Amino acid sequence: MDLYEEFIGRVQDIHRLGALQGHLGWDQEVLMPAKGATSRGEMMAWLAGQRHQQLTDERMGLLLDTLETQSLDADQAANVREMRRTYDQAIRLPTSFVETFAQARSEALVAWQQAREASDFEAFKPALRHLIDMTKEKISLLGIQSTPYDVLLDEYEVGMTVKDYDPLFAGLKARLVPLLQAITEAQERSEDPVMPEDMRFPIEAQKAFCEAVSSNMGFDFEAGRMDASTHPFSAGLWPGDTRFTTRFDERDPFSCLYAVMHETGHALYEQGLDHEHRYTPRGAAVSLGVHESQSRFWENQIGRTPAFWKVVLPWFTEAFPDAPTWDENALNRLANRVEKGFIRVEADEVTYNLHVMLRYEIEKELFNGNLEVDDLPTAWNTMFQDWFGIEVPEDRLGCLQDIHWSMGAFGYFPTYTLGNLYAAQLLHAMAADLGDIDVLVAAGDWQPMLDWLRARIHQRGSQVSPAQLIEDATGSPPSPEPFLEYVEKKYGELYNLG
Amino acid sequence: MDLYEEFIGRVQDIHRLGALQGHLGWDQEVLMPAKGATSRGEMMAWLAGQRHQQLTDERMGLLLDTLETQSLDADQAANVREMRRTYDQAIRLPTSFVETFAQARSEALVAWQQAREASDFEAFKPALRHLIDMTKEKISLLGIQSTPYDVLLDEYEVGMTVKDYDPLFAGLKARLVPLLQAITEAQERSEDPVMPEDMRFPIEAQKAFCEAVSSNMGFDFEAGRMDASTHPFSAGLWPGDTRFTTRFDERDPFSCLYAVMHETGHALYEQGLDHEHRYTPRGAAVSLGVHESQSRFWENQIGRTPAFWKVVLPWFTEAFPDAPTWDENALNRLANRVEKGFIRVEADEVTYNLHVMLRYEIEKELFNGNLEVDDLPTAWNTMFQDWFGIEVPEDRLGCLQDIHWSMGAFGYFPTYTLGNLYAAQLLHAMAADLGDIDVLVAAGDWQPMLDWLRARIHQRGSQVSPAQLIEDATGSPPSPEPFLEYVEKKYGELYNLG
Repeated sequence: MDLYEEFIGRVQDIHRLGALQGHLGWDQEVLMPAKGATSRGEMMAWLAGQRHQQLTDERMGLLLDTLETQSLDADQAANVREMRRTYDQAIRLPTSFVETFAQARSEALVAWQQAREASDFEAFKPALRHLIDMTKEKISLLGIQSTPYDVLLDEYEVGMTVKDYDPLFAGLKARLVPLLQAITEAQERSEDPVMPEDMRFPIEAQKAFCEAVSSNMGFDFEAGRMDASTHPFSAGLWPGDTRFTTRFDERDPFSCLYAVMHETGHALYEQGLDHEHRYTPRGAAVSLGVHESQSRFWENQIGRTPAFWKVVLPWFTEAFPDAPTWDENALNRLANRVEKGFIRVEADEVTYNLHVMLRYEIEKELFNGNLEVDDLPTAWNTMFQDWFGIEVPEDRLGCLQDIHWSMGAFGYFPTYTLGNLYAAQLLHAMAADLGDIDVLVAAGDWQPMLDWLRARIHQRGSQVSPAQLIEDATGSPPSPEPFLEYVEKKYGELYNLG
Repeated sequence: MDLYEEFIGRVQDIHRLGALQGHLGWDQEVLMPAKGATSRGEMMAWLAGQRHQQLTDERMGLLLDTLETQSLDADQAANVREMRRTYDQAIRLPTSFVETFAQARSEALVAWQQAREASDFEAFKPALRHLIDMTKEKISLLGIQSTPYDVLLDEYEVGMTVKDYDPLFAGLKARLVPLLQAITEAQERSEDPVMPEDMRFPIEAQKAFCEAVSSNMGFDFEAGRMDASTHPFSAGLWPGDTRFTTRFDERDPFSCLYAVMHETGHALYEQGLDHEHRYTPRGAAVSLGVHESQSRFWENQIGRTPAFWKVVLPWFTEAFPDAPTWDENALNRLANRVEKGFIRVEADEVTYNLHVMLRYEIEKELFNGNLEVDDLPTAWNTMFQDWFGIEVPEDRLGCLQDIHWSMGAFGYFPTYTLGNLYAAQLLHAMAADLGDIDVLVAAGDWQPMLDWLRARIHQRGSQVSPAQLIEDATGSPPSPEPFLEYVEKKYGELYNLG
């Protein structure tokens, strides 16, 4: 057996263990009964330990050292490059630490679910403190290059640090806050359609409607599933078996619809990966930022347009015959209403990034500053009042709303904003190739858009770095400008802003 | 680390891999989308290979050799005894064979599901032939002590061979066939209640009714789930997370009810295992025969009695307000109607064992005789006509009905009859301890019966052999007599037989 073959066999085994973690994680959120939590935590820890042991095996280091001196094709080189990065991090962490951390995450998830339901931060605090302490330990084990928080940021989008995010976010904030102000004023003057108080949208009808939209986006239901969970999410799981979840609110069909479009965007990326390269980095998504660009593209750039509503209007009317007779423009206005709401995942495209920045500032304070877990709700609520001008009435609508911290995913949120920026860049480049996207969307055949993304993003996996992938796909390096132009134009037209 | 500790750590790892196989198997039958089949088969093969490698590790042989010379407590000795048996078999099979067999099983399951739906034996034949060929190879690898089929029989109930089953089945047949004849004649004279042709029992109501029954049996829904699948089954899965499935037929609530009682019986065994000993033989069910005794006990000895129907009558009436006003005796007669039907899992207690014997004879011919796969449907249909006096109209109702062969589980069926025999013995012994079981059942509090089984069967895991466990619990070695007395008495009373 040649060395690369031996290497890739080990890489596949490591990824198979990761896929098993993914499957049990999906099951934990969607199906697992309450009393399964303890043994599930134990199994997650065991899998993490097994994976870590295989990853940090001496032989893996030797194989990497040798292969780095050999001539490899582009796909092979990508696998070696990515595994080197993973390996160099992993060998700094003892297996016992990896196991304990996995178990702590699994237990914190259960604590968070209960705490969120009861809006009781105190109930989540011990688990959260434990995870933050362990994360600080992880940071010191991995070794600090610049600031502690940078270690976390780099984990989720390679190469990004507070030095990159601080000016990026400041620049976005400088243009988004005035835009938000202008929209809020314009909304007071405009007459938007309103949702009747007593209107109900039956769950089964929402399900059918959303499945139709997801199918039209290109999701293959023979190679995946849609289920319900507290927090909508998507999981690649296995070649030929990609699953996403949504949640249902009888009073609000938009909540489910945009969760489905968002998660379908993620799921299309997973379904579009090159399964020839399954269980290797080359066959896996390149980064969270790029993943988020796929979800946001479909959710916002496609889903919140009159062209989209023109296509799905007949399906909507069929699913909800009792709804008011809204036309595509009314539905589009409802779907784009800018509100200073509490919940990030339900935020419009303007406020969304402010929600992300708030979490970024809190995390920066937790790891680079002096913020204590005890003071987290106050810090959150004060900043929210400051930025949004409204008071957070309970932690369920504040610092308990997101699943991420319960999964130990600190440093993850900023990738959401990267996703928004990448999505706008992709839309711009796609239009240059395919012509007016509104015309394409309104025609109802969305396959050309999916094909465009398949070739430029999905099928390439981790062939190159995220930034390079975006540059290859769009002709320009990552930049916030296309996004700012996009939102300013979109909301300018929607509300006749100067 | 002392040697036993090292040994048990390895045993737990092996069982964790087995539990992962169980979880993915459950998922495959309940949730997996069609296009996930290929990668699922690949993963099942990989897990089987990993498990096999760990099981056959040289070190495991060394540990067993050494521990067998040491003084161990009863639990430790049980683990060493069971692992020795498993190890001695495993080392005869190459890892590549184990992997290929696992993949073949996973693929055959998909082929069977499609073939069964279309009632198309030809569509299943290639996969079935492949599994039979591989099973013959396995037999020769494991080494034949007496006849080839004995190798398979021993796998599912240790120590049982055709020398045991042939006279056992002949004895049962000698008394069951005349009983069946007498019942059939009596039924022609009697006026049993009939199910109205156009009566429908809504799925949701069946679900609620069956969940209520399962709960009353003692199934803890916070430590498990009930789902739907083509073939009802139960899976221990994880400590604190035991799942079973059922199927729904709008025309027939009994089909779902008795599937649920049967699977709940299995699931109670799993929930009642000693989780202190999780992931070891000591904490696992001892055999399929004993497992089946638990399901058949609840399904038949409890579920098909007037005492049971007295308790659940109000729930039945509430769930199905449109049903005829049957009383407990009418419902019990409906639930006990003896019919020469085609489907084993829907068979009454008299014909059930004939269904088992038919499969036993077919398998014996396949492995000890000259029966070819091509001739299997004819052999089945001929024997069925002979024994039951009715013609099998299509293979869906004949040799395609059971899932077992698609899972490569040849030699499994006879354990169903052992389960029936054990269940009757347990009922007899339980009555000696707790008094009249009908009185207990009719009181509605079934906890004392569960407690009796918990202490004598569930909590003991694989502490002793199946035969010893039954003898410890009942005071007598396994025997067909209590079962024959039970059915003759039961049906004698039901139909006023001489």
